[in-house]
Amino acid sequence: MSAPVEKPKNDRLLRALARQPVDATPVWIMRQAGRYLPEYRETRARAGSFLKLCSTPELACEVTLQPLERFSLDAAILFSDILTIPNAMGLGLEFVEGEGPSFQRPVQTVRAIMDLGVPDPETELRYVMDAVLLIRKELDNRVPLIGFSGSPWTLASYMVEGQAPGHFRKVKGLMYGEPEALHHLLDILARSVAAYLEAQMKAGAQVLMIFDTWGGVLTTAAYEEFSLRYMHQILALLPTENRPPVILFSKGGGGWLESMAATGCDALGLDWSMDMGTARSLVGGQVALQGNLDPALLEAPDEVIRTEVGRVLASYGGGAGHIFNLGHGIQPWMKPEKMAVLVDAVHELSRQYHP
Amino acid sequence: MSAPVEKPKNDRLLRALARQPVDATPVWIMRQAGRYLPEYRETRARAGSFLKLCSTPELACEVTLQPLERFSLDAAILFSDILTIPNAMGLGLEFVEGEGPSFQRPVQTVRAIMDLGVPDPETELRYVMDAVLLIRKELDNRVPLIGFSGSPWTLASYMVEGQAPGHFRKVKGLMYGEPEALHHLLDILARSVAAYLEAQMKAGAQVLMIFDTWGGVLTTAAYEEFSLRYMHQILALLPTENRPPVILFSKGGGGWLESMAATGCDALGLDWSMDMGTARSLVGGQVALQGNLDPALLEAPDEVIRTEVGRVLASYGGGAGHIFNLGHGIQPWMKPEKMAVLVDAVHELSRQYHP
Repeated sequence: MSAPVEKPKNDRLLRALARQPVDATPVWIMRQAGRYLPEYRETRARAGSFLKLCSTPELACEVTLQPLERFSLDAAILFSDILTIPNAMGLGLEFVEGEGPSFQRPVQTVRAIMDLGVPDPETELRYVMDAVLLIRKELDNRVPLIGFSGSPWTLASYMVEGQAPGHFRKVKGLMYGEPEALHHLLDILARSVAAYLEAQMKAGAQVLMIFDTWGGVLTTAAYEEFSLRYMHQILALLPTENRPPVILFSKGGGGWLESMAATGCDALGLDWSMDMGTARSLVGGQVALQGNLDPALLEAPDEVIRTEVGRVLASYGGGAGHIFNLGHGIQPWMKPEKMAVLVDAVHELSRQYHP
Repeated sequence: MSAPVEKPKNDRLLRALARQPVDATPVWIMRQAGRYLPEYRETRARAGSFLKLCSTPELACEVTLQPLERFSLDAAILFSDILTIPNAMGLGLEFVEGEGPSFQRPVQTVRAIMDLGVPDPETELRYVMDAVLLIRKELDNRVPLIGFSGSPWTLASYMVEGQAPGHFRKVKGLMYGEPEALHHLLDILARSVAAYLEAQMKAGAQVLMIFDTWGGVLTTAAYEEFSLRYMHQILALLPTENRPPVILFSKGGGGWLESMAATGCDALGLDWSMDMGTARSLVGGQVALQGNLDPALLEAPDEVIRTEVGRVLASYGGGAGHIFNLGHGIQPWMKPEKMAVLVDAVHELSRQYHP
């Protein structure tokens, strides 16, 4: 038996990220390993808790691979939670059923911020690296594996609010009232995220994605100062040699694509509010683009899904650099059959753009 | 005693909407009559219910005028709810304390849509017109009065979801699955909103604003087809003679300003995600711009509020056509003193731009 080759057999995603020609547009879906799949719910039940599922490499590996068995997806994405870093920092992550994540010890004073340190990913987030190693082994180079982290701003929002932010009252209070303390927190987080992503890369992640879920709640000036600046810092901290391609995704960041592209990332994720074609005309010369079907379309009739997939593909147009995805994660109530309609439509309808 | 003159003594808002010179930038605040004011909470308690407060002209007038007693605001805005039209259509509007609005009879079948009619605002929404008449009388032309309505898409979202929409699952299901039925609903709503705004204008509203609170959840194509098109229809249906200036506000619509300006409206409201200066460079030659301070700033130290007010004013720059506002409504937990800091800062710091 030969040693596994480095390059995945299906390298559409890596080629598209490098803006090189492909035979069909690659597609993967945010939260493709998740609650809409009955086999996921079965594993989740067996794990006992969501945190146990995330922190047990064998179970995380199992659910990571599940969607690949059903759909001809062009990538796997590590199954994990974006709040692993704050949890490793000692905030006490909890998932109360039906209520989303919360922290037992949110960071709500300057003192609490000053007490935080950068976790060592190789030890304190060992379970994530073990999951990456195991997934790479089990994937056997069929498709590339995407590793990921939340952005510093997004992690800080959860850490300061103590739960999924609603009005961002506490974290914006800090931002406008004690900006130096927030900068200190964001700097620690940027260093933590960079170390975390580097460890994932060393464990075998072939693409890295930064989810800036809450960037869009900021003004342009605050986005640049409190979110983009720290994603830029992460990119600067990652090793330059053999660095995997990095995808930045600021939900609601359609107005800031040029400054996002200028960070030196390889691709930008787009939510569904902006036309692919408009985005491409702005930054298509610098980065690949990922997205951006409205996730609600997965409840539409099959022919409507196909029409709208075709519309996104046509909006991007011919040539390299497009990775198909939804504009946001797939919702738990979606039917798996619809995912198959989408994935197959992308591959079939995109061939005309890759002659 | 002389008859009241048509033109308000303070005509800064009307002049800015017409992009004519002013001595200082006019300012009013979305939800300026609301829960953050103790006198509002007192009147609300006296009314017994929110719906009673909206539907009793004397009480609606009382709360409309309250913020003008405290702050040197340049406009009054009719105190009402955006869901008056669906309520007049028979959906049974309810406000459960702490839960937001809901409908006893949401519109969830094509049949239910086909049964809807356009309410006669002069009779079925008489209480709103009586409030406008009374407010105009009590205002005695100190400042102009803004009337308003929800946009057809925003009203349809509430009517189909039955409550404040979360994932827009039902209304997007209709949009992608039975678009003709949704178009029928939106057409009825556009005609209803046009009649409602015309009645407000006849009763004395001097500016009209359309709140498209949920436009930003749509793709560009869907925004144009299901939201903008019907706001355009409203503008086409309003009388051309003596039509008051119309402000369109699609929250999250920063990417669509050019097509919004092309509807023939007089001004665009901006949320806080887009720079005033960028917006002005795109559409400042066609429309006035309203906004766009991050509402979270009202919890910041006074000097930060002043700095950020200055930043928005500087971003717009010199010359006519800016109306200062928040990028979204003021929240119930804000302190009234902060509102005074904001309003005074706008007037003081803007004079340099109006030499």
